[in-house]
Amino acid sequence: MNLFGRKPEKLGLTANSSVRKPRSTDAPHGPLAAELTRLLGPQKVLSAPAERLNYGYDAILVGKTPLCVVLPETTQDVVSAVRAAKAAGVPIVGRGAASGLSGGAAPLQESLVISFTRMTRLEIFAQRREARVQAGVITLAVSEAARPHGLIYPPDPASFRTSTIGGNLAENAGGPMCFKYGVSGDYVRGLEFVDVDGEVHELKRDAYDLAGLLIGSEGTLGFITEATLRLVPPPRFTRTLMSHFAEVGQAAEAVSQAIAAGAVPAKLEFMDRACTNAVEDYLNIGLPREAEAVLLVDTDGEDVQTVEEELALVKAACLSCGGTVRRAEGDAESAALWQARRSISPALGRIRPQRMNEDIVVPRSVLAEVVREIRALGEASGLRLVQFGHIGDGNLHPNILFDPRRESREKVHHLAEQVAEVAIRHGGVLSGEHGIGAMKRDFMRGAVDAVTLQALWDVKRALDPQERLNPGKVLP
Amino acid sequence: MNLFGRKPEKLGLTANSSVRKPRSTDAPHGPLAAELTRLLGPQKVLSAPAERLNYGYDAILVGKTPLCVVLPETTQDVVSAVRAAKAAGVPIVGRGAASGLSGGAAPLQESLVISFTRMTRLEIFAQRREARVQAGVITLAVSEAARPHGLIYPPDPASFRTSTIGGNLAENAGGPMCFKYGVSGDYVRGLEFVDVDGEVHELKRDAYDLAGLLIGSEGTLGFITEATLRLVPPPRFTRTLMSHFAEVGQAAEAVSQAIAAGAVPAKLEFMDRACTNAVEDYLNIGLPREAEAVLLVDTDGEDVQTVEEELALVKAACLSCGGTVRRAEGDAESAALWQARRSISPALGRIRPQRMNEDIVVPRSVLAEVVREIRALGEASGLRLVQFGHIGDGNLHPNILFDPRRESREKVHHLAEQVAEVAIRHGGVLSGEHGIGAMKRDFMRGAVDAVTLQALWDVKRALDPQERLNPGKVLP
Repeated sequence: MNLFGRKPEKLGLTANSSVRKPRSTDAPHGPLAAELTRLLGPQKVLSAPAERLNYGYDAILVGKTPLCVVLPETTQDVVSAVRAAKAAGVPIVGRGAASGLSGGAAPLQESLVISFTRMTRLEIFAQRREARVQAGVITLAVSEAARPHGLIYPPDPASFRTSTIGGNLAENAGGPMCFKYGVSGDYVRGLEFVDVDGEVHELKRDAYDLAGLLIGSEGTLGFITEATLRLVPPPRFTRTLMSHFAEVGQAAEAVSQAIAAGAVPAKLEFMDRACTNAVEDYLNIGLPREAEAVLLVDTDGEDVQTVEEELALVKAACLSCGGTVRRAEGDAESAALWQARRSISPALGRIRPQRMNEDIVVPRSVLAEVVREIRALGEASGLRLVQFGHIGDGNLHPNILFDPRRESREKVHHLAEQVAEVAIRHGGVLSGEHGIGAMKRDFMRGAVDAVTLQALWDVKRALDPQERLNPGKVLP
Repeated sequence: MNLFGRKPEKLGLTANSSVRKPRSTDAPHGPLAAELTRLLGPQKVLSAPAERLNYGYDAILVGKTPLCVVLPETTQDVVSAVRAAKAAGVPIVGRGAASGLSGGAAPLQESLVISFTRMTRLEIFAQRREARVQAGVITLAVSEAARPHGLIYPPDPASFRTSTIGGNLAENAGGPMCFKYGVSGDYVRGLEFVDVDGEVHELKRDAYDLAGLLIGSEGTLGFITEATLRLVPPPRFTRTLMSHFAEVGQAAEAVSQAIAAGAVPAKLEFMDRACTNAVEDYLNIGLPREAEAVLLVDTDGEDVQTVEEELALVKAACLSCGGTVRRAEGDAESAALWQARRSISPALGRIRPQRMNEDIVVPRSVLAEVVREIRALGEASGLRLVQFGHIGDGNLHPNILFDPRRESREKVHHLAEQVAEVAIRHGGVLSGEHGIGAMKRDFMRGAVDAVTLQALWDVKRALDPQERLNPGKVLP
């Protein structure tokens, strides 16, 4: 099993080779760019190499520089672009903010990239508790627009200040709030999407849940252009607690005990020792460097007493499992504690210039064992490996930190494969919230049996017979 | 637009013609029954006409008597049956308790019926808050098995004492609890299904959510044989309130106001005047006969004060909209009030021997208008029409009551079509919880645009190229 299903250097994971040496693609892209410029006007088309370069990679993967980039403002623009690409026989890759962590938005072939960042119409229908948004609306903007109406949009992927709704839905993104409130797809009441032929479909969540199929399909079945999102009132009260443990199993057991006792925390985050130390090196805020496991927990709700009771259940579970508990006194301290969690990405960036970020989900009952096995694999490999994640639903992010100038890429890939195998062996899945994309595509062979993979391919080909939509993603 | 896409008498909606005059099907069914008996043993195969008769209809529709019925006990039995039917070129119709209200389980062609009622294995994994159930497990049995562990399975379709999990998932059934807790599909963590070739697939809710596609597909894409269901702790406190109004719009406005104020009732049911009077004729429990709208509301939760506060919000909204409020004092009175709601079906059966039960969902903001329009259509038609439903999510069940000996079937069908058109014109959908089945299949043309219908057909054919799975259902 090879991580990318091809030689890694071909993907240019490390050296930004396609950025430094843009291929001359004038011949093939010329006619398509000209046609798109004719159809959409020059303001909506990027065809110069310098303009296209940035659209060849996302937050984790450097792919191919696209032949041409369109920046549609309307669904009709998307239709025009898709039809022109079809006529030219060119693959199409959709792109939001490209903050994804599985390579879903990085083209693997010479493609037309449709960047949705100008499709930012956003309407709030307070009475119906709904937002109607175009694909390019920034995730956080939905809650910001809804809040004056006493409503929020709960899904909160870590990148929610930059990520787009279209990208979130394409990846069915999660986030800390998702343990209590559900993932992006759970908030979709309806979708508009453009298929590979440029036909526009308006979908509700009904029999034959095609909308549900589009959500999480990473642009391989069609392009989500608009969505109707369900909004909810924000919790009136929130309480925060940090607990640390001498052993990972204690933290996992505390989480299980708290949930079994009836607590449904809004957020329930875990950091291992290596992760805690990386953050403490970065922030110097007094995190417990000796702890093997740190838990960060929010409870929230309408009723302050219930919120306090839930926090008390979590606290009792942590103490009974040998944890040390610190409760945030007020919003400022709560924000400081959560800053630790939000600082993981920059903190890790200081240790090694690159990282391979996995996104496994395992049953909570085996979480301690999984964390221990993965840590042992990391130690045996000689590479730096940290673990953190949304422990409430067993979503763990083992991150392999490496410097491609000093550490072998093959070794990184081998360790990543071993981590995926641990997850699958324990009944887990490969993608909790980041998607499969290019990064974990070949792991799908281990995660999905062959006949089911065939069924997924059958569905894929029903909607994209020529495999022109984000080729090389999700399905091996 | 014709309701069934064929002359209604051919379906035998009314006169049980296929029961009275079973066709001699010995010749075509003989070899398949013999092969299935050889494969599965005689105890699992019904081939005598008298045995097969009951499997030709469901709770709303009389279809074709099947060629043969198998009663599998294991997934392997299902695989054997599906492969034998494939070899014989015979369509297959899955069947749970056949309590569905859209004709989903009634064969429209001579078919093999797979009845899942003997697949009743049920395991509770309390620590993981999961149940693993075979398709034939009775819905209520899941909560009964989970309750000693402090857990329940919330979806509660009206027929939950007889319906099966497999049938519930095939129809993605709802129920009163679904306003707060979500529909059947929201509780599925994983599925096992057998495809048209007899291959077994094990699905998790992951990228390419094939499980989500199977849920609600009414046996037209494959057969769900097992499911892993999410369990939750039951609410510790429940409070019940009944309110009645002189005008439907007041009730709808009260619901909107209560929800806007932050109440999320566990159940929120509506009955119109005709429905209330039908129930009162039947039960004689003192329901308000003059009221144009009756609301039945439960609030529930962990914290008695929050539950009371939510009920107070509902009460205030009802009063401010002109409603009269009665609060249940204790569990006995609460049960009595809910008995009214649960008695609607038998109460309507006393008025006319047959009924056409619709299942529309409309935005709550237009609910009052929709109820008025449908009532006016009923009055203009001269037929008896009652309306009730889950008003919290706008799921309305207009029921046309008729006596086929005295009232024209064409008139019933015409009124049903008019009701569906009202729903669609107001931005609604045709199926909230009963499925599309045979009863509402042709309405799909009005509800789904032509290119999207083509996409649904493409998906259908990807998984069932010869259209042998429950032919004639869902897709027109």
